[in-house]
Order: sequence, then C-alpha cells, then structure tokens
Amino acid sequence: MEGYKLFLAFLASALLLGFLSVVFALLWVLHYREGLGWNGGSAEFNWHPVLMITGFVFIQGIAIIVYRLPWTWKCSKFLMKLIHAGLHTIALTLAIISLVAVFDFHNAQNIPNMYSLHSWIGLTAVILYALQLVLGFVVFLLPFTPTSLRTALMPIHTYSGLLIFGTVIATALMGITEKLIFSLNIIPYRDSPKEAIFVNVLGVLIVAYGAVIMWMATRPHWKRPLEHVFQTHQRIGEGFSEEDCHNPDLEISSDGAARKRNPKSDETGQRSTM
Amino acid sequence: MEGYKLFLAFLASALLLGFLSVVFALLWVLHYREGLGWNGGSAEFNWHPVLMITGFVFIQGIAIIVYRLPWTWKCSKFLMKLIHAGLHTIALTLAIISLVAVFDFHNAQNIPNMYSLHSWIGLTAVILYALQLVLGFVVFLLPFTPTSLRTALMPIHTYSGLLIFGTVIATALMGITEKLIFSLNIIPYRDSPKEAIFVNVLGVLIVAYGAVIMWMATRPHWKRPLEHVFQTHQRIGEGFSEEDCHNPDLEISSDGAARKRNPKSDETGQRSTM
Repeated sequence: MEGYKLFLAFLASALLLGFLSVVFALLWVLHYREGLGWNGGSAEFNWHPVLMITGFVFIQGIAIIVYRLPWTWKCSKFLMKLIHAGLHTIALTLAIISLVAVFDFHNAQNIPNMYSLHSWIGLTAVILYALQLVLGFVVFLLPFTPTSLRTALMPIHTYSGLLIFGTVIATALMGITEKLIFSLNIIPYRDSPKEAIFVNVLGVLIVAYGAVIMWMATRPHWKRPLEHVFQTHQRIGEGFSEEDCHNPDLEISSDGAARKRNPKSDETGQRSTM
Repeated sequence: MEGYKLFLAFLASALLLGFLSVVFALLWVLHYREGLGWNGGSAEFNWHPVLMITGFVFIQGIAIIVYRLPWTWKCSKFLMKLIHAGLHTIALTLAIISLVAVFDFHNAQNIPNMYSLHSWIGLTAVILYALQLVLGFVVFLLPFTPTSLRTALMPIHTYSGLLIFGTVIATALMGITEKLIFSLNIIPYRDSPKEAIFVNVLGVLIVAYGAVIMWMATRPHWKRPLEHVFQTHQRIGEGFSEEDCHNPDLEISSDGAARKRNPKSDETGQRSTM
C-alpha cells in the first residue's frame, strides 16, 4: 500500500477523534446535563446527541472506510460488504432509537416536532440513509443484480454515502447550536460558560473526524486492490468461514498490506470514482 | 464531453439553486427583517447572511466548477486559473465584509464576539480559505514553482477546497439556526411562523446547491481535458488576449464541447484525484 504509515496515522487520528467525540458527548450529558434516562424528560432527550454521535457520526464514518483497511484485503469482498452493511445497519438503528428519544421528549413536554432546520435536514438524512442501505443491499449484495447496474450505480452510491455523512455532521453542528442556546439559562451561551466551551470543542472534534474520514475515503491509492468479485458474489447464501479472510489472489507485503497478484480479471465497474 | 446534456442539467440546477438562495437571503432581510444598512444595528447585521450566501456559498461554488464548463476548454488553462482565483478572491472579499458587519454589530450592541460554534467553525473556514487562496496562487500561478510540488499539492488543494466549501455550508446552517432562535420573538421558532418556514427552505436550498456542486466537481468524466500546461505557465506576466480562448490543441465537437487532440504531452500532475 502506497503511504501505509501515513494511512495508519490517519486511521489512528480518525479513531482518536471519533472516540473523543463520543466521550465528550457522554461527559456533556452526564456531567453538565441531566444524565441518561427514559422518562420523557431531559434525560431521555440526552440519548439523542449521544446515540447520534456514536452511531450516525462515529460508526457511519468507520463503515465508510472499512474497505480501506489493508489487513482486510485478504478477506473476501463479500465478507467486507457484509461488515460495511452491518456497521451501517448498527448506525441506522442507533439513529432511529435516537429519533424516538427526541420525539418522545417533545411529545411529553408539548414541544412541537419537526419545526427546525436541524429536524428537516436531519430526518431527510436518516430517510436517505435508510434508502441507501436498502438500495445498497439489493444492488451490491443480492446475487441477481446485473453487473452493468452495479457499475452504473457505484459512483452514485459512493457520492450519496459521503454526501449523507457530511450532511449528518452539519446536522449535528446545528443540533449542538440549538441545544446550547436552549439549555444554557443561568449563564447564557453568549457569556461562554464552561459547558459552552466544552460543547463547542465537541463540535470541532466532529468536524475534524469528518475531515479525516473524507480524506481517507477519497484517496485513490488507498483503495482496496482489485479482485475476482464474481467469485465472491456467487457465494452469497453459502455463509462464510475463515477462508473468507484468505484470498489466494492477494499477497501480503512486508509492510503488512495486501497486494494484488493478478489485476486483470477484475471488478472495474464495482469501484468508486471518488 | 461524456454526458454533456446531463452536465448542462446539473449546471442549470446549480445556477437556479444558487440564485434562489441569494434571492431568499435578500427577501429574508428585506421582507421579514430590518432591511440593509450600516448603522451598528440589525440592518448592518443583515449584510452577514446576504454576503455570506452570495459570496461564500454561491460564488465559491461557481469558482469550484469553473474548469468544468466545456465552452471554456478552448481557453488557456492560465486564463481559467485567473478566473478561478478571481472568483475565489471575490468570494473572500464578500466574506470579510460580511465578518466586519457582524463584528461591528456585536460591538455596537455589546454582544460578545466568537462565543458560538458557528463563529469558531466559520472564522476558521475564512482563515483556511484565505490560506488556500494564497497557497494556490503561489503554487499554481507563479511560474517558478516546481512541477513536482504542484503535482504533490494538487490533491490537497482540491480536497481542501471541497472541505472548506462543505464546512461553509454547515456553518451557514448553524448561522440560520442561531438567527431564527434569537430573532423570532412574537411567534417563536418552535411555533413555525412564516419566516421560520421561509428560512428553513433557504437552508434546504443551500444544502441542495452544495450537493449539486459537489457532484459536478467530483465526476472524473467532466474534468477539463488535458493540455500543454507548461506553455501556458510560461505566459504569466505576458497578459492574455483573445487567443487565450483559442487553444489549437483542442477541437470543438458537435455537442459544443472541446476535446483534446493530443493527450500525451500533458499536465498529469496538475489534475485532481477527486
């Protein structure tokens, strides 16, 4: 892999920034706010930022770059597709629970739903994310989809994925802004209480995490090497075993990265243009 | 050009969405707010959204895709670089005036500066944008910069440009959220007065504009064809004439798009990987 050490540095940064974002979100609600609960009150609302940042930001970001981890290149593409789809499914599940929490809180407190730009953009992003997941499953995981359709849809799938991820981050920033304005009463947001500074830093961490993921996801030389996809596509329904992580077409180089022996027979149409 | 009609459809959509965003921003401040002025009051603040949306969103977006307009492919790369840099300079100038307006308003009204996440991310974006412009000028317009450095920095330049553009849109959404919460007093934001719906639509228009620009900027088959860059680099300081829009290496096809006659002698290292 070209720039393997640099890749590792970016990956470590992404993991650190993502992990810190989740820790900051937890500290925000546990230390500065009312903690976590499921009682229609503020503690229930607090699941919203925690689950969104954990699932819809951190896990979604990891799902996006999972193909790029060089030690997975010896695993079959099919297995990696399952992991990619699985992580996105976990992210979507957490996002939906997070939405239930905020609707429940609004209803219990007689606060209208869906009035803010945050809610408009955010709900659209969740719906598009679910559609992307279903469409991705049908097109790229089910065996009967023609290769020509996969080829045509892959650039759209990649673009949509990154666009939704960016939009989710923008929505998180709007949500943080709203929540700080609404909830800082004793010392208002404009007077920069400690909580405001702390949560602004959370916002910066989320942006930095998004920037690192976007960089990793758009470097062409960090793409998973080409392989025999048709072979793996045919295996759907057969389950997978340890052999899914021993691809005879790939050899591992001294830097720990897998390289392609025979790049000719290949999944050209399966690869992103980003 | 592959997909010329589709390109035109995207371009028309981008222009329409960008134009509508500017119109909506103007209607917001002129119809729903205190209009425009320079008196330390709300009318001065109102220059902030108008100039940011006009310059830092609309014009920045056009500057990003200006190389992709097929009818400019017969113009020299040098001329197009000047137009690209010129549009970004206009965008930066409007952003700076817009910042002066908001700082001036805050100071006149005794509102603290730089307390919000919107201001943290937004000011960082303006500073990075200015650095990107200066670095872009030094690396890609001055004739003495080694080609190897240009080659190395082009992917970073492209990535940074798109990242800043996306961040600016996220910042605009935060700004809209803040302003609606702060300024809607008679009927609050949560009760969805007409102004809230109108400005939420403005937010959606901005996101849609960003999505269209991002799609256009990342389609590899819509890139400007390759050409003799060294020839045009050498011409810096010589000025340019009508001949800058007649490149003998390019021929115009029946669909109005320019195509490369000789793709070998070329600016490989000058081209984005996005």
